[in-house]
Formats: sequence, C-alpha cells, structure tokens
Amino acid sequence: MMKRIVITFFMCLLMAGLVYAKEDVKMKDTFSVIHARKSVRNFTGATVSKSDLDKILKAGMAAPTAVNMQPWSFVAITERKILDDLDAGLPYAKMLTKAGAAIIVCTEPDKAYEKSKDMAIIDAALAGENILLAIEALDLGGVWTAAYPYPDRMKHVKTVLKIPEEVIPLNVIAIGVLAGQDKPKDKYKKENIHWEKW
Amino acid sequence: MMKRIVITFFMCLLMAGLVYAKEDVKMKDTFSVIHARKSVRNFTGATVSKSDLDKILKAGMAAPTAVNMQPWSFVAITERKILDDLDAGLPYAKMLTKAGAAIIVCTEPDKAYEKSKDMAIIDAALAGENILLAIEALDLGGVWTAAYPYPDRMKHVKTVLKIPEEVIPLNVIAIGVLAGQDKPKDKYKKENIHWEKW
Repeated sequence: MMKRIVITFFMCLLMAGLVYAKEDVKMKDTFSVIHARKSVRNFTGATVSKSDLDKILKAGMAAPTAVNMQPWSFVAITERKILDDLDAGLPYAKMLTKAGAAIIVCTEPDKAYEKSKDMAIIDAALAGENILLAIEALDLGGVWTAAYPYPDRMKHVKTVLKIPEEVIPLNVIAIGVLAGQDKPKDKYKKENIHWEKW
Repeated sequence: MMKRIVITFFMCLLMAGLVYAKEDVKMKDTFSVIHARKSVRNFTGATVSKSDLDKILKAGMAAPTAVNMQPWSFVAITERKILDDLDAGLPYAKMLTKAGAAIIVCTEPDKAYEKSKDMAIIDAALAGENILLAIEALDLGGVWTAAYPYPDRMKHVKTVLKIPEEVIPLNVIAIGVLAGQDKPKDKYKKENIHWEKW
C-alpha cells in the first residue's frame, strides 16, 4: 500500500513536470514577446518551414483594418534563388542571403476604405507588426526592411516577384534562424508620454 | 509515516495547482492574444488604471522604428471630461463616453528617418498595433478610431489636447472594461497569400 503511494507520488511529479515543460514550449507570454522582439540580421542560413510561415501569415491577417477592408496581400518566399534575386537590387537587405524565408506585405489602395492610400499603408503596417511578433514568438528572427516609400526598391521587388502595378510592396521582412546575439533595444522614455494633455 | 506521505502528496498537488493557476493569470500566449484581439466598442464605464496604461504604453514603445528614430509620442487620458470633449468633435468615437481611458498615438515627421512623413506614420502605426495587443493581453478592450488622415478630426484632437502644430495625431484608441460580447473576426484568407511569386 505504502509502496503504491510512493510510486503514485513520483509518477504524479513526473507528469506535472511533463505538462509544465510542454506548456513552456507552447506558451509565449505576449508582453515578453513584445519586449523581446528585435531586428535580427544574423541568420544561420537554415530553412524556415511553410508551417511556421503559415502561422506567421495567419497572425498578420489577424490585425485590424479600417472598416474591415483587408486591402492586404502577402508574398511568402522560401526559394533560395528568389531571396538572392531580391537582395541583388535592395540596398539594405544583405541579410536575405542567410535568411530562410521572406514575407513581403503588400497593399492595394483601391481595396482600402475610401480607396485611401493612407489607410492601405496603415492597415498593411499593422499586419507587418503582427508578423514581426509572430516571428519572435516562434523563436525565429526577423527584420523589416523598407520597400515603400522608395520608388527604386518598390520597382525591384515588383519586378522580381511579378507584383501587379496597382499593388504596393510595403516591405521585405527577412526571416531566419538566429545566428547571433541580437538584443532588443529599450526604447521606453517617460518624456514621450503626455498624461491627460500634451 | 504513511500518513505523512499522504499529507505530502496532497500538499504537493495543492501547490502545483496554485503555481499553475498563477501562471495562467500571468501568461497570455502571443498567438492567442493576436487572434483574440478585436475592436471593442462596448465598455462598462469603469476606469482603467495608470499602471495598466503604463504597461500598454511600454508595449507601444517596444515597436520598431525606421533607423531607430522613435518619432512617436503618446497622450494618455483618464479624465472623464477630456474623453467626453474628444468624443464631442469626432464622428465615430461615441464609445469614448463609456471608455475608461484613451491613448492618442502621435508622430512627428521632422523626427523620423529622412524627415519622412511616410516613415513617421508607419512607425507610429506599429506602436499602435502593439498597444492594441497589450490591451487584449490585459483582458481590456480597445478600438483604433482614425484621426489621420482626416484634417477635421486631427484638428479637433489637437485643439482638445493642445498638441503642437508639427505633431500628427494618428488615432484615438479608446480603452475600457468590456461590457459586451465583442468577438474577433476570422480574416485568414488563403487567396491573400502568394507563395514564392505573385
């Protein structure tokens, strides 16, 4: 009887440990992820799975858009040659050569509320931030490199990816497995907060 | 001896339960929060604490900005009269009358990379999305009502809050305790994803 209790006790401890460890992998606290997110430019060159990219894209499409117009679309890239072709015409995207994937957040003013280019850009930007947070939550690294508002960069991205004329590529988000020790910046400044009035 | 083991066993279960319950309150999984976030317009009228607002503002300032320029600033409002004054001149901000607080995300093109208004708007938009996610993570409700790009709304917000001429108020984010049953929208659409090329 006593032996049975001792065995039950240790099995209970073991199971609790397993449950706890599993939760630890699955759950990534929102505030921790928001504060841990950083611009990662050092990747190992390892691939990023389509299943991870799908989770990241789903997170992007969970962002709000003005009057729910969802003027966005996304190009998700895993092919080495396309990543290199993008890099070849972009001034600040060398990290693509070691990235495992990239997502281009696109937006179409004609599909946005009041056909507003401002709304289209803001809607897509919010999706972009969700994407950056999802990348961090999956323990991957990412960095937003701007395409918009630079005409030459947008033209290059559109040419390589065959993006239609009326669509704006907002950015190229490089995604990869972390190679370095990129650290988040502490940007909290009390003087940027005005309580009640300016 | 056996009594002692039985007592230890149940105390162990109790402690594990307490630890687990505490974690459940503290941790809010990032993907769950991203997908649970919704535009909340039904508030109870209860106040929102400055400590919660500070957490929300810190999350906002953790967003990336182009070349780390941080062109943003934030007006955080808890006073009933100011919330009502804002509502009085805004067409889609009636929920402010029952909100406990509001945050206005502001941005200043002169402080942005290359003094670009586009960069200033995008940087501030990303902070705004972090703010919306932080609100959800704290089990509060929030909704982004646009100030930019509407000249009349921006003028009203600037007048009420004494915001300097050169500063753009991007939005008025109403924040409050949930009164209704607002549900997140499922906006995931496979056709919005283009794999490898458009």
